[in-house]
Amino acid sequence: MEIFKIKNDERGKKIIDLGNGIKIGGDEFTVIAGPCSVESEEQIELTAQTLGSMDIRILRGGAFKPRTSPYAFQGLGLEGLKLLKKAGEKNNMKIVSEIMDPRDLEASYDFIDIFQIGSRNMQNFALLKEVGKFDKPVLLKRGMASTIKEWLMAAEYIASEGNDKIVLCERGIRTFEEYTRNTLDLSVVPIIKELSNLPIIIDPSHGTGRKELIKPVTRASVAIGADGVMIEVHPNPCEALSDGEQSLNFNEMKEILSNIKALRGCIDRFNC
Amino acid sequence: MEIFKIKNDERGKKIIDLGNGIKIGGDEFTVIAGPCSVESEEQIELTAQTLGSMDIRILRGGAFKPRTSPYAFQGLGLEGLKLLKKAGEKNNMKIVSEIMDPRDLEASYDFIDIFQIGSRNMQNFALLKEVGKFDKPVLLKRGMASTIKEWLMAAEYIASEGNDKIVLCERGIRTFEEYTRNTLDLSVVPIIKELSNLPIIIDPSHGTGRKELIKPVTRASVAIGADGVMIEVHPNPCEALSDGEQSLNFNEMKEILSNIKALRGCIDRFNC
Amino acid sequence: MEIFKIKNDERGKKIIDLGNGIKIGGDEFTVIAGPCSVESEEQIELTAQTLGSMDIRILRGGAFKPRTSPYAFQGLGLEGLKLLKKAGEKNNMKIVSEIMDPRDLEASYDFIDIFQIGSRNMQNFALLKEVGKFDKPVLLKRGMASTIKEWLMAAEYIASEGNDKIVLCERGIRTFEEYTRNTLDLSVVPIIKELSNLPIIIDPSHGTGRKELIKPVTRASVAIGADGVMIEVHPNPCEALSDGEQSLNFNEMKEILSNIKALRGCIDRFNC
Amino acid sequence: MEIFKIKNDERGKKIIDLGNGIKIGGDEFTVIAGPCSVESEEQIELTAQTLGSMDIRILRGGAFKPRTSPYAFQGLGLEGLKLLKKAGEKNNMKIVSEIMDPRDLEASYDFIDIFQIGSRNMQNFALLKEVGKFDKPVLLKRGMASTIKEWLMAAEYIASEGNDKIVLCERGIRTFEEYTRNTLDLSVVPIIKELSNLPIIIDPSHGTGRKELIKPVTRASVAIGADGVMIEVHPNPCEALSDGEQSLNFNEMKEILSNIKALRGCIDRFNC
Repeated sequence: MEIFKIKNDERGKKIIDLGNGIKIGGDEFTVIAGPCSVESEEQIELTAQTLGSMDIRILRGGAFKPRTSPYAFQGLGLEGLKLLKKAGEKNNMKIVSEIMDPRDLEASYDFIDIFQIGSRNMQNFALLKEVGKFDKPVLLKRGMASTIKEWLMAAEYIASEGNDKIVLCERGIRTFEEYTRNTLDLSVVPIIKELSNLPIIIDPSHGTGRKELIKPVTRASVAIGADGVMIEVHPNPCEALSDGEQSLNFNEMKEILSNIKALRGCIDRFNC
Repeated sequence: MEIFKIKNDERGKKIIDLGNGIKIGGDEFTVIAGPCSVESEEQIELTAQTLGSMDIRILRGGAFKPRTSPYAFQGLGLEGLKLLKKAGEKNNMKIVSEIMDPRDLEASYDFIDIFQIGSRNMQNFALLKEVGKFDKPVLLKRGMASTIKEWLMAAEYIASEGNDKIVLCERGIRTFEEYTRNTLDLSVVPIIKELSNLPIIIDPSHGTGRKELIKPVTRASVAIGADGVMIEVHPNPCEALSDGEQSLNFNEMKEILSNIKALRGCIDRFNC
Repeated sequence: MEIFKIKNDERGKKIIDLGNGIKIGGDEFTVIAGPCSVESEEQIELTAQTLGSMDIRILRGGAFKPRTSPYAFQGLGLEGLKLLKKAGEKNNMKIVSEIMDPRDLEASYDFIDIFQIGSRNMQNFALLKEVGKFDKPVLLKRGMASTIKEWLMAAEYIASEGNDKIVLCERGIRTFEEYTRNTLDLSVVPIIKELSNLPIIIDPSHGTGRKELIKPVTRASVAIGADGVMIEVHPNPCEALSDGEQSLNFNEMKEILSNIKALRGCIDRFNC
Repeated sequence: MEIFKIKNDERGKKIIDLGNGIKIGGDEFTVIAGPCSVESEEQIELTAQTLGSMDIRILRGGAFKPRTSPYAFQGLGLEGLKLLKKAGEKNNMKIVSEIMDPRDLEASYDFIDIFQIGSRNMQNFALLKEVGKFDKPVLLKRGMASTIKEWLMAAEYIASEGNDKIVLCERGIRTFEEYTRNTLDLSVVPIIKELSNLPIIIDPSHGTGRKELIKPVTRASVAIGADGVMIEVHPNPCEALSDGEQSLNFNEMKEILSNIKALRGCIDRFNC
């Protein structure tokens, strides 16, 4: 496969099927939610149960954390993945979690349904090739200084090894603006749909870094044609070990879901 | 007035009233459209008539053009403004047009309803102060490397001279990405609503530089809570003297209006 | 003239002759120094006398100040220019000062030897055209988000009106890095020499925003082939009304001059 | 160790000793040169012999190549490293080469004297930690969108595992400017000297992407106080499999060495 050489009738058409009726792409608008980091069994169980009851079917949670400083909380590692998987299974949720080391893929395989490649590793070609040898979907975040072409070429690294179950995730690029953590580039959604057949979701949490912006940005993501959003939710954002300032509590998440639903009802009425 | 010191109950509340029931701000979603440059009487008459018949009530058109090269078409100047005004009056449309020289304001006064300050002049403080002495609304575009704070401070330059009828316009910032002409920062909409009482509109034409992106970006602008859009439309984009590659034809504009209408009907159903 | 169409043997060759043997370009390395703002007669007199005694022959000083906020100190205006000129004449120094409004050029003409166009006005085409009608040299700073091509085209706006006595000044571009005020792009020096015949100087004060970096950056400017530097110096930086954190005191300036001299002696020994 | 918590008298003082009198840091100005990619035994032998005869003592050469596309030439891998080492040993040169996969470190250990971490992997924390467990020096390139703080924290990841033999390498950051491949930020040299005890070298080849800029940029690197440069040299740049447009031929390299020598003689005369 060559992502850039897709046929016309394939553009924006790939559907990632996770089983149990859970999908990304096509007519779906998929909501992924969960904490920045898995912190404890209680935290992740409570989160999974609450989000599951809102009919969110994919749980995110960091176990291997890419922190700027080696002395910051690095995540619970494999133990965190096990907690995640257990919480997911109890609540009929699939798991997405970031992997940073090609040597961790095999041990993590049983606990992750979608391997996430983070922004800092978008051009970690050893990792891309390795994840390309597995049969599980990959969520590939855009690098913070990556052009659209480089991003698709990173996807191509995965696909070239045989795994074309790829979901792209826009999470903002680095610019001079300091008010937001990153500058979210929503225009990539129709561009990616034109240039590839891959689904694309938006991460408003990292894309803005400010919880009050997540609701309006999610609405814009629906309206521009994204295939979903990934949002950081924490039972108690003020006590989160990481990213508290951009995490929503459960009630805020619920409100966003009702915004998405209202807007989705409307989107069907016109041809995007 | 100090824009940064507004009271809580004023946030995002200012309405710019242009007369004849034409407004920007509040519950309105205002569509501004027209060619990049006024090229001829025929061109602007046909455009005004067609857009007016679609119930678009503000006509844009460049008469003084800020071109990178001094040898590129510089616009028709005052003559262009007269053509604009005439076409606007025939079709019950208000006029927005860019002014680059403080010495042109007086002569242009009778032909322009909203003075536009372009991206390159966002920190042309002499121009900002001068336009602040007039009683006509000002459309202030964001500078291509301006932070949100600098943008609001530029508005403050206008307001400090007495004129607080200001509409902000996001038109993209300059980043490393080359696929689009600029990187459109839609997250500024809720930020501006939080930090000021000013209306804010989006310019998807300059913000993306690609005509195929204007429809989805306009939908996102509605969904994120913008007060309007400004879109380049030309009777025959392929023959435009400037910005043809980002200009829509009349049919494409019509389709966008129907998208906006459908989405606006839906937005009323939930609390933004 | 078209700057981009210069002949091979003209590249990097233009010399701006200010009279009294004071020049920019050619074999000279010109040092321009002075305070960010003219604050008082005493301040500027003391500065001119001290810098003049170090054999610095061009005095900088802001009279019309482009401040982000309209409520910050805006400079002494024409009165400041008169103080500058008087101090310059007493000490055999030429004057460079920023002009922001085309309507100020005539009144300022007698007090300024080099009109400075600041970064924020690099694409203020009305100002560029106006200054192009005068016979005095122009110092054109690079816009904070301007490409090299746009910068040369801004110079072309001046030249197209008849005034080709232009000196370019690199003062850093805006990037994501926050440690320095701007990111100084020294590589433009050989690029400008290749693409035009204009002299180019470096502004390490705005380019870095940190006084401790000015000495090493000045040395690099000499070594890379710049035609000079413009440095902010204040009798008492801690009490400066603007830019104190990037201003040198007289002793620091003296040390830099001795660095330049040592390096210049060496540069002659090899072919740049 | 914590790089950010160094004592005052340690700033900029670390010396990396490679044996045979070959060092980076302190009073040295170290020149590293060689081709972008090892292409054949002949190519690397000829290069090593020629550069060695110019008294260049560290040979660079890519064996594992981080290419944007998976279908571009990926380097000769371990075979390339063996050719490099052999050529280096014949000519009394140490070897620096990029490693992208933590699993390659052990097999590469015998053939590399300085492990290079490339720009794309600056925040590949698994790789940083792994290289931190070895006893060989590490050349850590700045990420293309990395702040100075993030860069030093990446060095800290290596040091936190026990290996503090780290050399930093500035290779340009990504900005809006397209004339050069990257925007080289020379001001980081004195900043790094202030914030850490690590040596820092400049990569003018990637920093500019244009061979005609390498000589002036190298001179600026000497003058600003860098501890060395790393330059791409190829026996026949026009036929290089990668980066030909930024590679020098042997004669051009020789000229640069004589520039460095002349300038170094002069630098001793004043206190940097």
